[in-house]
Amino acid sequence: MIDIDRRTAALLALLAPFAAGSAGAQTSKSRPKVPDTGHDMDMKGHSSSKVHWTGNEQIAMLMYPGMTVLDLIGPQAMFGALMGAKVLLVAKSLDPVTSDAGVTIIPTATFEACPRDLTVLFTPGGTDGTLAAAVDPETRAFMADRGARAKYVTSVCSGSLILGAAGLLKGYKATSHWSVRDALAGFGAIPTDARVVCDRNRITGAGVTAGLDFGLTMVAELRDRTYAECVQLMGEYDPDPPFNAGSMKTASAEVRIPMVEMLAGFTKKAEELASATRG
Amino acid sequence: MIDIDRRTAALLALLAPFAAGSAGAQTSKSRPKVPDTGHDMDMKGHSSSKVHWTGNEQIAMLMYPGMTVLDLIGPQAMFGALMGAKVLLVAKSLDPVTSDAGVTIIPTATFEACPRDLTVLFTPGGTDGTLAAAVDPETRAFMADRGARAKYVTSVCSGSLILGAAGLLKGYKATSHWSVRDALAGFGAIPTDARVVCDRNRITGAGVTAGLDFGLTMVAELRDRTYAECVQLMGEYDPDPPFNAGSMKTASAEVRIPMVEMLAGFTKKAEELASATRG
Repeated sequence: MIDIDRRTAALLALLAPFAAGSAGAQTSKSRPKVPDTGHDMDMKGHSSSKVHWTGNEQIAMLMYPGMTVLDLIGPQAMFGALMGAKVLLVAKSLDPVTSDAGVTIIPTATFEACPRDLTVLFTPGGTDGTLAAAVDPETRAFMADRGARAKYVTSVCSGSLILGAAGLLKGYKATSHWSVRDALAGFGAIPTDARVVCDRNRITGAGVTAGLDFGLTMVAELRDRTYAECVQLMGEYDPDPPFNAGSMKTASAEVRIPMVEMLAGFTKKAEELASATRG
Repeated sequence: MIDIDRRTAALLALLAPFAAGSAGAQTSKSRPKVPDTGHDMDMKGHSSSKVHWTGNEQIAMLMYPGMTVLDLIGPQAMFGALMGAKVLLVAKSLDPVTSDAGVTIIPTATFEACPRDLTVLFTPGGTDGTLAAAVDPETRAFMADRGARAKYVTSVCSGSLILGAAGLLKGYKATSHWSVRDALAGFGAIPTDARVVCDRNRITGAGVTAGLDFGLTMVAELRDRTYAECVQLMGEYDPDPPFNAGSMKTASAEVRIPMVEMLAGFTKKAEELASATRG
């Protein structure tokens, strides 16, 4: 559980005058997009600006051995910027969880302790660790249970395999890491080639770094666009990759072919898992 | 320390035939950019393709309480993809380290145990935690020592304040999070407004998410462009932010002004630290 941290405290202190309806600071000729005395928020039409700048979302982020930690931490950075939200790192036990590249993180809640009613249920991806988590009975039961009631059911990268295995994607459009996106069909999902796919309350992101675009999308969904833009600026998310090989469409054959080959075993296992889960 | 993980093992198995000079798989009419029997690598002119696809870099990534964990994990994802490299998460002790938003990670090496001669020394940023680390005598001494001999001295976000405080940026161009970039001048650095700044062996990234662009730049520097493109594709780093407010240039006033205000205290403390360290 994340208590109010320094960043949140600073932001609360800054925005308290706005939220309380006392004399606001900046004004502008155009319709203000930040909370200001007496003005409605653009996007949601609420009369109280307080609704958007604080919240009380309960967000559970699954962790498991062999996960890809950037799948988790990109979104966690975004969720962690939501003032008032509680973000839990949930695992089967409180034992430290080691990622596929050796980063060990301590969970903050067990499955049992995780609130039954969540605003957001989220899972990161990985390769073999993800397949193992997808078929683990406790993990699957946890995901299916919380996923049945969560306001949003979400994943980044191959985490959607875990959603699929828990029966949470039947009939939903969804994406995944490019290596296993098509395998989602075996779970009854509709594989969709986009960086962030939103189908009703299922919101899934493509591979690894898509977690940032997913995370900002979620911030806007949970609060509003202005909040998301503030988070984007705080994180200086103005990407400028030095190369242009980040997708199957843009990578040259010399890059694509060996990487497809490298993940061929994982792709196959994901397809087998999905077929076995079908029905 | 990261042992050879599954991903590395898979990639090694794939590339072993290439590295050993046995019959390669794909050929193409254009000059191949992946290791192939008998061909030089484009970028570095080495005759053995083995040089680029494995390495033995020693990479130390500093951790400290209150760091911003995405500053660390973006680059760690990139460094972790370097086959053969050893990536250490180094801290004052082996006690778990908690980030500014509540993520607790277990270090893999202490300052004492960290190799004396590094390929890459790296530090993430944060706010108050970063200022504390910058003035902490043990941390400063560690950074100054390893930084004197490291092949590359690097940071992302306000981590450059730690480099500056250790005397490592005098006369070097460098960047930081937008809120404290200009403060670098107090350390004798030359604040430079770019997402990744390379001045001799000092390579610094802008705020938080710039760690991905920094990381790919480092992979290309340590190995070559093709390797970096492979890592980019594996991480599906084809960013597509839903909004366009990730920099001081692109964010609207309604976003910029409150965020500048929110960090004003931190900006001031960074300037004071830099001035106190001057000389």
